[in-house]
Amino acid sequence: MRHWSHRWIAVARIAITCIAIAAAASPLLTKPARAEDGYDLWLRYRPVETSYAAQYRPHATAIIGGNTPILMRAKAELQRGLDGLLDQKTPIVDLPVDGAVMLVTEDASVPEEGFRIEARTVNGHAVTVISARTDQGALYGAFRFLRQIQTRQSLDHLKIADAPKIKLRVVDHWDNLNGTVERGYSGASIFDWWRLPDLVDPRLTDYARAEASIGINGVVLNNVNAKADSLTEPYLRKTEAVAQVLRPYGIKVYLSARFSAPIDLGGLKTADPLDPAVQAWWAAKTDEIYKIIPDFGGFLVKANSEGQPGPGDYGRNHAQGANMLAAALKPHGGIVMWRAFVYSEHDADDRAKQAYNEFAPVEGQFADNVLLQIKNGPIDFQPREPFHPLFGAMPKTNEMLEVQVTKEYLGQGTHLVYQGPLYEETLKADTFAKGKGSTVAKIIDGSLDGHTLTGIAGVSNVGDDRNWTAHDFSQADWYAFGRLAWDPEASSRDIAADWVRMTFSADPAFVKPVVEMMMTSRETAARYMTPLGLAHQMATGHHYGPGPWVCDLARPEWNPCYYAKADARGIGFDRTATGSNALAQYTPKAAKLWTDPKTMDERYLLWFHHLPWTYKVQSGRSLWDELVTDYDAGANAAGDMRRTWAGLSAYVDPQRFAAISANLAIQEREARWWRDASIAYFQSKSGLPLPAGIAAPTHDLDYYKGLNFPYAPGHN
Amino acid sequence: MRHWSHRWIAVARIAITCIAIAAAASPLLTKPARAEDGYDLWLRYRPVETSYAAQYRPHATAIIGGNTPILMRAKAELQRGLDGLLDQKTPIVDLPVDGAVMLVTEDASVPEEGFRIEARTVNGHAVTVISARTDQGALYGAFRFLRQIQTRQSLDHLKIADAPKIKLRVVDHWDNLNGTVERGYSGASIFDWWRLPDLVDPRLTDYARAEASIGINGVVLNNVNAKADSLTEPYLRKTEAVAQVLRPYGIKVYLSARFSAPIDLGGLKTADPLDPAVQAWWAAKTDEIYKIIPDFGGFLVKANSEGQPGPGDYGRNHAQGANMLAAALKPHGGIVMWRAFVYSEHDADDRAKQAYNEFAPVEGQFADNVLLQIKNGPIDFQPREPFHPLFGAMPKTNEMLEVQVTKEYLGQGTHLVYQGPLYEETLKADTFAKGKGSTVAKIIDGSLDGHTLTGIAGVSNVGDDRNWTAHDFSQADWYAFGRLAWDPEASSRDIAADWVRMTFSADPAFVKPVVEMMMTSRETAARYMTPLGLAHQMATGHHYGPGPWVCDLARPEWNPCYYAKADARGIGFDRTATGSNALAQYTPKAAKLWTDPKTMDERYLLWFHHLPWTYKVQSGRSLWDELVTDYDAGANAAGDMRRTWAGLSAYVDPQRFAAISANLAIQEREARWWRDASIAYFQSKSGLPLPAGIAAPTHDLDYYKGLNFPYAPGHN
Repeated sequence: MRHWSHRWIAVARIAITCIAIAAAASPLLTKPARAEDGYDLWLRYRPVETSYAAQYRPHATAIIGGNTPILMRAKAELQRGLDGLLDQKTPIVDLPVDGAVMLVTEDASVPEEGFRIEARTVNGHAVTVISARTDQGALYGAFRFLRQIQTRQSLDHLKIADAPKIKLRVVDHWDNLNGTVERGYSGASIFDWWRLPDLVDPRLTDYARAEASIGINGVVLNNVNAKADSLTEPYLRKTEAVAQVLRPYGIKVYLSARFSAPIDLGGLKTADPLDPAVQAWWAAKTDEIYKIIPDFGGFLVKANSEGQPGPGDYGRNHAQGANMLAAALKPHGGIVMWRAFVYSEHDADDRAKQAYNEFAPVEGQFADNVLLQIKNGPIDFQPREPFHPLFGAMPKTNEMLEVQVTKEYLGQGTHLVYQGPLYEETLKADTFAKGKGSTVAKIIDGSLDGHTLTGIAGVSNVGDDRNWTAHDFSQADWYAFGRLAWDPEASSRDIAADWVRMTFSADPAFVKPVVEMMMTSRETAARYMTPLGLAHQMATGHHYGPGPWVCDLARPEWNPCYYAKADARGIGFDRTATGSNALAQYTPKAAKLWTDPKTMDERYLLWFHHLPWTYKVQSGRSLWDELVTDYDAGANAAGDMRRTWAGLSAYVDPQRFAAISANLAIQEREARWWRDASIAYFQSKSGLPLPAGIAAPTHDLDYYKGLNFPYAPGHN
Repeated sequence: MRHWSHRWIAVARIAITCIAIAAAASPLLTKPARAEDGYDLWLRYRPVETSYAAQYRPHATAIIGGNTPILMRAKAELQRGLDGLLDQKTPIVDLPVDGAVMLVTEDASVPEEGFRIEARTVNGHAVTVISARTDQGALYGAFRFLRQIQTRQSLDHLKIADAPKIKLRVVDHWDNLNGTVERGYSGASIFDWWRLPDLVDPRLTDYARAEASIGINGVVLNNVNAKADSLTEPYLRKTEAVAQVLRPYGIKVYLSARFSAPIDLGGLKTADPLDPAVQAWWAAKTDEIYKIIPDFGGFLVKANSEGQPGPGDYGRNHAQGANMLAAALKPHGGIVMWRAFVYSEHDADDRAKQAYNEFAPVEGQFADNVLLQIKNGPIDFQPREPFHPLFGAMPKTNEMLEVQVTKEYLGQGTHLVYQGPLYEETLKADTFAKGKGSTVAKIIDGSLDGHTLTGIAGVSNVGDDRNWTAHDFSQADWYAFGRLAWDPEASSRDIAADWVRMTFSADPAFVKPVVEMMMTSRETAARYMTPLGLAHQMATGHHYGPGPWVCDLARPEWNPCYYAKADARGIGFDRTATGSNALAQYTPKAAKLWTDPKTMDERYLLWFHHLPWTYKVQSGRSLWDELVTDYDAGANAAGDMRRTWAGLSAYVDPQRFAAISANLAIQEREARWWRDASIAYFQSKSGLPLPAGIAAPTHDLDYYKGLNFPYAPGHN
């Protein structure tokens, strides 16, 4: 026994007291150390409120799990998350202790990539078990457990079971080998092809964490307008260096393949998919790829579209082209994602009909490791489109949905437009292919037609801007895409609420108005850009700002006037039987939703119907008055967003608050520009006065026509 | 009087003890929070070693100073620096206290932008006074005081007096309005023209801090290959938004002006500088600029060079062009920086002579607010060039030096090549214009010819890469440029040592080998790229890698073969009297240094002389053997750098260490490529065997000729 003097006991007491005080004080001490610049995304892991911390800490005393590459990442993420959220040092231990979080794998009762999170007793200790069949499932479970805390839900008596409904959850990068990003508004590519494989940016690890946290399991690294160079050996080694970062997060890499690569690289005279030399070239190339990247995912192909080479150059159809690549990939377990986005300068038919016209005839001819990747709508990522008529039309084909996360037509890098509701609208759209309830979601998750190879792709909005997506709120589109890829029947409102809590603040006084603002933002943008089902009224090339007057481009379907068909009498694209009859590409029940302008959802009105300016819409107004009222309401609503945000400064760090405020000011100004330019132009057609109470455009039409933006981003 | 119970006193004691303990513990707690990514540059402000902290803290107890915009920044920087370096909370106070740092301005005894730092007693308190005439001088003094700590020098009995020797210390951004950077290897432009003026990146503030810390007082925001758009009202407002960030750091903005702007923007038929309508247009434009940017610095102009418009288009000379702009700027106090970088496809003379040929005749004709901006050498930022013959040749003209900080020809974003010695070599070069000691430094600081409008410009290497300059060591070029702009007679070795201490570690065991590596790095690069005074052997367009065989470009002086003039008999450009006689553009005493190949510095040998392969150089070797030996030694030295760095991991954070290691590995590989490709090519000319012990190139010449880099950065 030792004897302690009173003096030493007093010192010891002081020390203990100090540790407690220091621990309590530390969040305040450490918080201001780092500016909030948006880099952390929704994995922000700032300390929760004291009352929540007290409630959570007993359920997060330690972390246990295996030491495979993926499980190491899962444990590290749990540690990072719990350390940050609960302001503690969470040990990684080997044996269960009370309150531990335990990762268990090889649980055959859980679906492939799924997980269960349950309160259990292990060796007499109350622990939270995250059990999964695969390492990847456990990683997803770890992120799910952290989300529980990030969104301030209970950790008591947990009983969560979840698994992704879609097999391939893919992000497509339209990133070029020179570092630019097609339709990118967030800086340069995060892939530094030039210095890879030597220099691997640590940022890629954070990118992989972000993708894994929302369940993404595939990334296409290069633009669909592909260069063959990405298939050369030096570039394959670069791709493998990226794969080495993504692999331990359960993410496979894919490449966009240029169909003419056998000519460009192989020196062949042809890329004809039926030519044995071409087939042999792809087989050898595929072998080479898998030697370098053993878990390579496969190819994404844009063929015979907007100048890209393809099987049509040799009189072959898309199935013949896709199947040739699929045969090369098949022995390695790879797949082909073949894009349905085709339209032709030689086809005089309605552009909205061309993809269906070209693909429906080859139904049943695609190999089983091919997915047909179909954009959400029949044109091109407009603020609003009806679902693509190919959905449900090819039940024997693996149909995959492609949405755009980057906002080419929705305000690019500066407008707050939350796309969750747009994705949800497509996913929940009913094709009636097998009767009521044949939603796009059920087609792409394979349940409607019994497919097991299922997929969804989002065109990335990620660049090397410090906050990844230029506008902080555009992070929400990335997040929502991942969450809906995991569960295509999820609610975009719930997802928005989770994102706001994880990214900014869980305070209900903040969450509520911000989620409301997000949920209405897409309708707002649709109104100030293309109300009542108008489409593609954007300026030429960069698609920035309004250009409804443009009517002189080489190909008719490149012109805004092609889509609005406005003249002195009326406006709109007649896609009924009296017009292009695109409606006939839908099932009769789906078509019926849009056949009668008197009863239909008028947000699709001018997509399907050409109507006189004087036509009376459901509100009782004339079409002209309604159109102008919509533009005006959209512009006003953009101002409302700015004002709503201005009142929320107390909840957000100054740097992000200021950046978002600046973007909202730009958006309000540009919404007004859209309104004014569009009204000025359409008034020059209709010749009608503005409805009472609606202000005239600030400038005359010539002013808006004269605006010119040679340095608009997104030009390539 | 209140009565305190013993219990409360005990609690108070605990609290005080705790504050002390918490303060002592905090460096350990806060350090690992943030990865070192190079963003902090040389303003890193990490805690100094304990013994130093104890020594410094009594001299840094508080900060006092005025509340002008610049002094607010100076105080904030002192606080940030002292807080970080001394791991304390430094109060800003109103009255002197012992150990305070005090900023005093309007001290008429100090030069314009200079400062004094002195230990003094003020109101009975021992303080350190930073006194200056201007706010800007005080800001520079604040940075100088911090540097004293960052480089572990004493704060006792301080008596420092310093002032810049050159008036305009300017950084030129070759940044385009679309966000790309010509010859930029560090990501996109830091100027987000698209979202300015609404969105002002907080990064610009850190940029301004960095520039001010090295005494830069002017920034040209746009590329010398200028678009007229930057002079339109919307872009001027964007420029003013940038100016608002730079102004409180004592930095003026300048713009590159397109000479044809009166045609491009004004709708005039001509840009003839003698046309009154043109003069009126520029006068009105300049008025407009100063209304928006009251302290606008002036114009930088690239005229009649590489396709840019200029006065020569109207038969006018450069002085007539420059003076026209100078007249417009004069009433506002603005200046013109007119570039001397001209050469012409119509001039058959040696490219190295053309600028002199064109400018020497207009000596004495430039207005007093014009500076002639002259590159360090007569060609174009080569690894080694003799000084430009215009230096000293125009004593009545304000001659300004232009160096390249970005490394177009020196390894771009990946090679460690410290340019301090290159800048120093130019500055210390003796023109003998007024006898011995007529150095370039004394010409550009105005002392030789009594000029007061003096200047130096560095072409920026800054981009939006997280660490600003792609290679962490390229930060040193930026730093050294600023320090030499402040004092053109400073030692690049001392500057390197300061930079290493401020950026990585002040540990002598680290500083010594790293400074040594930096100081030899430029000679190393010159050897593996262009030994013995060769020049411009780089591949076409992007200037990445070797291309000595290129001989088919439209203009002779674009071809590497033009510069090396290698054939079966010999190599080198004869610039003596038997050749182009470029030597005659120098003063006889300067020319004499290079006239005799037997006695001259052989690092300039082939710049001035064409010699047989068998010519015996000073080492006793044949020219051929010497050339090959140099290539070989350069490549080996690149490997030495990698090995030196590999042994220093203990001193550097893992992220920066890994990135630098990766770049050094690339450099070693590319140095070998340069060596191999160059030897293979020149051997195809000389037909001579390699000296004993020198390995043959890895591949044959055709292999190197066949390499192709379509995605090399820096292409625009």
